[in-house]
Amino acid sequence: LNGQFVPASEAVVSAFDRGFLYGDGLFETLRVYCGRPFRWTKHLERLEGGAACLHLRLPYSADELKSAAEELIRRNQMPEAVLRLAVSRGPGERGYSIAGAARPTVVMSLHPAASLAEADRPRWRLLTSSWRVAVRDRLGQFKTSCRLVHVLARAEAELAGADEALLLDTDGQVVEAAGSNLFWIQGGVVCTVPLEAGALPGVTRSIVLELCAALPVAARQVPITPPRLLQADAVFLSLSTWGLVEAASLDGQTLGVSPLVQTLHQRYQALVAAESAA
Amino acid sequence: LNGQFVPASEAVVSAFDRGFLYGDGLFETLRVYCGRPFRWTKHLERLEGGAACLHLRLPYSADELKSAAEELIRRNQMPEAVLRLAVSRGPGERGYSIAGAARPTVVMSLHPAASLAEADRPRWRLLTSSWRVAVRDRLGQFKTSCRLVHVLARAEAELAGADEALLLDTDGQVVEAAGSNLFWIQGGVVCTVPLEAGALPGVTRSIVLELCAALPVAARQVPITPPRLLQADAVFLSLSTWGLVEAASLDGQTLGVSPLVQTLHQRYQALVAAESAA
Repeated sequence: LNGQFVPASEAVVSAFDRGFLYGDGLFETLRVYCGRPFRWTKHLERLEGGAACLHLRLPYSADELKSAAEELIRRNQMPEAVLRLAVSRGPGERGYSIAGAARPTVVMSLHPAASLAEADRPRWRLLTSSWRVAVRDRLGQFKTSCRLVHVLARAEAELAGADEALLLDTDGQVVEAAGSNLFWIQGGVVCTVPLEAGALPGVTRSIVLELCAALPVAARQVPITPPRLLQADAVFLSLSTWGLVEAASLDGQTLGVSPLVQTLHQRYQALVAAESAA
Repeated sequence: LNGQFVPASEAVVSAFDRGFLYGDGLFETLRVYCGRPFRWTKHLERLEGGAACLHLRLPYSADELKSAAEELIRRNQMPEAVLRLAVSRGPGERGYSIAGAARPTVVMSLHPAASLAEADRPRWRLLTSSWRVAVRDRLGQFKTSCRLVHVLARAEAELAGADEALLLDTDGQVVEAAGSNLFWIQGGVVCTVPLEAGALPGVTRSIVLELCAALPVAARQVPITPPRLLQADAVFLSLSTWGLVEAASLDGQTLGVSPLVQTLHQRYQALVAAESAA
């Protein structure tokens, strides 16, 4: 917390922190394997891009943050964990103006992580959310702290007995899932929503596309609507905390399966193992 | 702060508060005149509507909150002030799911207020923001804590030497200004953006429409685009903290003036004086 190591119960921020008041901040969620934050650089690049967009000056370099993360992992003896890094604009004057808010708040925390092992893999039930995001949302390329639509979409899904929500834009095009990127397989081709549609440039999303190129298997970035998604051979999600997760159903309708999802997940596991051991 | 009176420097919330992490909360900004929060009930109705939409249970009744507000005003001896009331979902588990987050955070604070007196009235320069909100944004009817677009629009305006930003939706229709509702006068008719367009149902906006009905002067709720706004007789903004504020220019082009704006502002002042003295 701002350079100090404190117990979770003492990790507090000002009630005038603009993160708390306006969602005026950013975050990244990384998986820690074997004591190392996985794809740290990619996450930090996105964070730094977001900070530039928000006119927010990070008070620490990527290297300083990495050292702090590693120290946090050591102190908590949590080599297998989820690492959350949150940056807000810090306390400021009342009102939207960012003038005078010059001391960003930086918080890192560790949380329990899910296993990547095949036997533990869930299959998620998806629900198309009634909540909509803006068409080609410019902020969609960053993990900003304004996540209420994602929170409400997830709550709607969970209330309906589903695990994850599918988010559409106000034109009815699929953008992503609340906490993950969306993939589907159609005739042996791995497809995902293009970033121009407002999808988050997910770190795991990029890895999936890299893995496709390496296999090789054809990959395409194309828009899609929920009805067409139901006709796909299989649907899966990508997210840092879980890797690849196959979708079991969409809006109560059972989705197909494809051996390609398992192949990609195994390649993902192998990549994680290689990079964590390096 | 959660039922306690604490100095501003000791007003802290958990770094795991979902308000801080996800903008998962709501707020209201009221003007206090003569020691009384102006139009308390209207603000609380909007807050309660937002809380219901967010599946968030307010831990205090409107009356309890009002008593706390009045006590806060007394203790700080600030009968002329801006009162900010923020409610967040409170601390929760990592991730978007609201499961397990059952203890909302409630913060009230007082801030210096602008004068309503005629001599002190500013005229604001407006800038059409490049930031866009979702078409007919369902969350637009509440003051949620996800305000990054408003923050960035205001920052963009201030960087360009303007005072306030005009927000359009992704279809290019005007929705509101970053921190205020938009009105314009066209041929003696007072016009504003309809709520269906995603405009915040501002408390001061409602009062302006009531004042028009009482004068009487014709009022209409119609969509508008920036080019048509430039052709209006006059443009003004409404917001709780300032009342009515005339716009001096839009994107560097001087806007017209109308005696109707001054008339409405005087009626607003009279209403404030009557209700504060009652």
